[in-house]
Amino acid sequence: MKVTNPVIKDLLRHYRQISLLSKTKAVLDWDLNVNLPPKAAEGRSRQTSHLAELITDLWLDEKFRNQLDKASLLPSKISKEEQSIVRNLNFAGKYYFNVPKELIVEKEKVASVAFMAWKEAKEKNDFAIFLPHLKELIRIDQMVASHLKFDKNPYDALLDQFEPELTADKAKIAFDAIKPDLIKLVKRIQKSSGYSPTSPYVEQKMIYSRSEQELLLKSVMKRMGYDFNAGRVDVSPHPFTTSLDRYDVRITTMYLDNDFRPSYTSTMHETGHALYELGIEPDYSETPLEGGVSFGIHEALSRFWENMVGKNPAFITFMSPLFQSFYPDQLSALTSNDLGKIVNMVKPSNIRIEADEVTYSLHIILRFEIENALFNNEIKPEDAPRVWREKAKEYFGIEPEKDSEGVLQDVHWAYGAFGYFPAYALGNLYGAQLLHTMEKEINFEGELEKGNLLPIKGWLDQNVHRHGSLYLPAELMRKVTGEKLNPRYFINYLTKKYTKLYDLS
Amino acid sequence: MKVTNPVIKDLLRHYRQISLLSKTKAVLDWDLNVNLPPKAAEGRSRQTSHLAELITDLWLDEKFRNQLDKASLLPSKISKEEQSIVRNLNFAGKYYFNVPKELIVEKEKVASVAFMAWKEAKEKNDFAIFLPHLKELIRIDQMVASHLKFDKNPYDALLDQFEPELTADKAKIAFDAIKPDLIKLVKRIQKSSGYSPTSPYVEQKMIYSRSEQELLLKSVMKRMGYDFNAGRVDVSPHPFTTSLDRYDVRITTMYLDNDFRPSYTSTMHETGHALYELGIEPDYSETPLEGGVSFGIHEALSRFWENMVGKNPAFITFMSPLFQSFYPDQLSALTSNDLGKIVNMVKPSNIRIEADEVTYSLHIILRFEIENALFNNEIKPEDAPRVWREKAKEYFGIEPEKDSEGVLQDVHWAYGAFGYFPAYALGNLYGAQLLHTMEKEINFEGELEKGNLLPIKGWLDQNVHRHGSLYLPAELMRKVTGEKLNPRYFINYLTKKYTKLYDLS
Repeated sequence: MKVTNPVIKDLLRHYRQISLLSKTKAVLDWDLNVNLPPKAAEGRSRQTSHLAELITDLWLDEKFRNQLDKASLLPSKISKEEQSIVRNLNFAGKYYFNVPKELIVEKEKVASVAFMAWKEAKEKNDFAIFLPHLKELIRIDQMVASHLKFDKNPYDALLDQFEPELTADKAKIAFDAIKPDLIKLVKRIQKSSGYSPTSPYVEQKMIYSRSEQELLLKSVMKRMGYDFNAGRVDVSPHPFTTSLDRYDVRITTMYLDNDFRPSYTSTMHETGHALYELGIEPDYSETPLEGGVSFGIHEALSRFWENMVGKNPAFITFMSPLFQSFYPDQLSALTSNDLGKIVNMVKPSNIRIEADEVTYSLHIILRFEIENALFNNEIKPEDAPRVWREKAKEYFGIEPEKDSEGVLQDVHWAYGAFGYFPAYALGNLYGAQLLHTMEKEINFEGELEKGNLLPIKGWLDQNVHRHGSLYLPAELMRKVTGEKLNPRYFINYLTKKYTKLYDLS
Repeated sequence: MKVTNPVIKDLLRHYRQISLLSKTKAVLDWDLNVNLPPKAAEGRSRQTSHLAELITDLWLDEKFRNQLDKASLLPSKISKEEQSIVRNLNFAGKYYFNVPKELIVEKEKVASVAFMAWKEAKEKNDFAIFLPHLKELIRIDQMVASHLKFDKNPYDALLDQFEPELTADKAKIAFDAIKPDLIKLVKRIQKSSGYSPTSPYVEQKMIYSRSEQELLLKSVMKRMGYDFNAGRVDVSPHPFTTSLDRYDVRITTMYLDNDFRPSYTSTMHETGHALYELGIEPDYSETPLEGGVSFGIHEALSRFWENMVGKNPAFITFMSPLFQSFYPDQLSALTSNDLGKIVNMVKPSNIRIEADEVTYSLHIILRFEIENALFNNEIKPEDAPRVWREKAKEYFGIEPEKDSEGVLQDVHWAYGAFGYFPAYALGNLYGAQLLHTMEKEINFEGELEKGNLLPIKGWLDQNVHRHGSLYLPAELMRKVTGEKLNPRYFINYLTKKYTKLYDLS
């Protein structure tokens, strides 16, 4: 990367401090999730808050803001990279620059009380306990949105924070384009003759030892091209990926005793995130071009590896002898087709995090629609449980008996993270579109049949990973696939895959 | 802790930032030693250096220094705790306040080049490679000493950094008082009829599995009263202890396949450090009274647990059935007396880190004498290898055949850490004096026979740990034992223990 403009050089010097402290904070957070002894929770939170304060101060530094303003007026003849540096700083700084510090602090306080109330409400299955906090959180995020500015929909300002340039209108168009087909596909699968929502191989009967699961997932990570000299895999209750340095991107996983699937799929998912971060142009490290460009593109890649590679029937066929050699007592009686069905089991469920590939996006669409309605006062917070049940019934054919399995199931709202969910479903759409382009350039199914994942990683390195945050999501998709977001690819992908798997007529 | 003085309140607020960043840095360093993937070394060093810079800036903050100067003039009617806060800030700040930043930076640069040269010199057994760097490091530390100020001996300024108030004269008096007796004791042990410097139980023949060693050491840590909810034990090449929070004090250990002793003794050693930090008055946390008061007192406690408890023949007798149940195939043929001898094996060696309890202090005295002579121009750096060999011959009866096992064996000089070593030997002296007092108040041997370590921890909590950095080492020793440092206790302790163990006449 060649940066010649002196103002931008200054910006880079300043940002480097933000980057170093953010990665330091990431080390603290990783350690919190993987290693922290219980009594250290309060102390760690003081350390982390202090770092967060230092980072905020760096964003609010007056000299830095003046220079960023100056840079924003620079003629467009500065290089693409320089332009993106300025754009990304403005984007990342937007929250700090526009939202008053008191409101940020108030939101943190309200959210921390709300989190406790949400926990209690979920445990007691009593939405009324959470309701006043939900109202308060929405009121605060309405104010945040007005400080961040928006054209007509306050929800747009929140969406944009997680996925640059995303609006509720754009999301609605994309989601409306897939919703009816998804609902239909689920019903067709459920009615097919080979359909089964359970399997004795992943129920109480079987025991999959942790050490065997660990060996298997490490062998898959190696196959994916993950560099164990630039990261590690540990255990935490909720799997995640974190970048502690350009050459230190760690993932975590979790193990179930009676089910080999979650460690397999969540490891491929997290490794997908990690390959993105590890594939970025090294020069971008500790600059505003570092890191993946958005939650949506990150989820595109992680869900691509999890679903389109890891659960691809051709790859499962290749993996069958491996699965059986790792778990001979448990799986030797199965055909590779049986395994493919177990790994791709479709089962409408009330719980998002247990959802399969087909119903997952419907869970997100449901949340998106409710969030959008809440922020546009089309429904009131007290209506959310009812609306949730109605939509669940419509989309999955089942409805939650308890709010704890409905409107109270996710933690996101209790953190005040409205606008986060859509990135998940958007990721599915991006992923299918990338796959469509990839299939024209490499023999995707053929490589999977042979268990060759490196050509796939190589294609992603070349077309997506290396760019880091150089291009915004829409720009990146157009550059790589030659067209704007097209949700049909996702429906086509799912229809083709599940028609074959379940022999749908 | 009650702090009422407003100036001191301000100092505490400022120091709290230093404390939080220092603990953050400790997390990064812990992770570096325990988890870091190889390719992340450079990135981690950038993160750590940046934190070190922020910490330096906090020490050099002008407003803070002015307030500290103001506080230093406060009438003596402020509380003991307030007085110690001011004293500790002046002590810890001394280096930053007096040594010019350029010299600090120069020392870091010289040391990092010197470290590489030392590594090469040690590998190639060629002192000449290291010599110019050693000269340079001594020249720089001479300058550091002159900035830190000293009365007559520049080495005093360096010693004081690691052990407040220690001078070369004081160290020399203490060391001269034990040196001849140590040399004699080693010879008596070697000439005794039961003496053996080897054992088939810890040589190539035996295999002690790592999982068994881990179970054993965790059971010993529990017995010592270590709180696993406020820390953890991991593996690193060089065992260490680190405080990441008042309630997060972690240790590391290492395992040898053919020898159960190093993990046992080093774990008790490190747990001794950890009990000190975990026993400090919680109110002192994130104030200048936090943490152990000095390297010497810390080593006193760690070596107390390692040698005076862990290798005490009465405790080994209690532990024998445990050792044998953990390692039945390896140790079942041994008597508890045999085990006591194996654990306390005396063996003059050229290598300090392999030294036993009797010869260890001689290794330190040798280094102290050479450092003192170097900084007073009594010998030249080029003479160090020769002087080292002469002293080794005199103290241990053997001399290193190669400089790599002599003058080049330790990394400390390559870091420019002159003055660090004496704290180790001082710790032995402090420890024996504490033991002497403890034995008047609790039935030390009796408790060890029954495997009861909690009364010992309780005594240390009450008399030493809880004070943190409230009292300087000499003040603390006088307060706890009623007298100033008396090296005879150490000689008496060793003589009594080894006379019995080796049946010396």
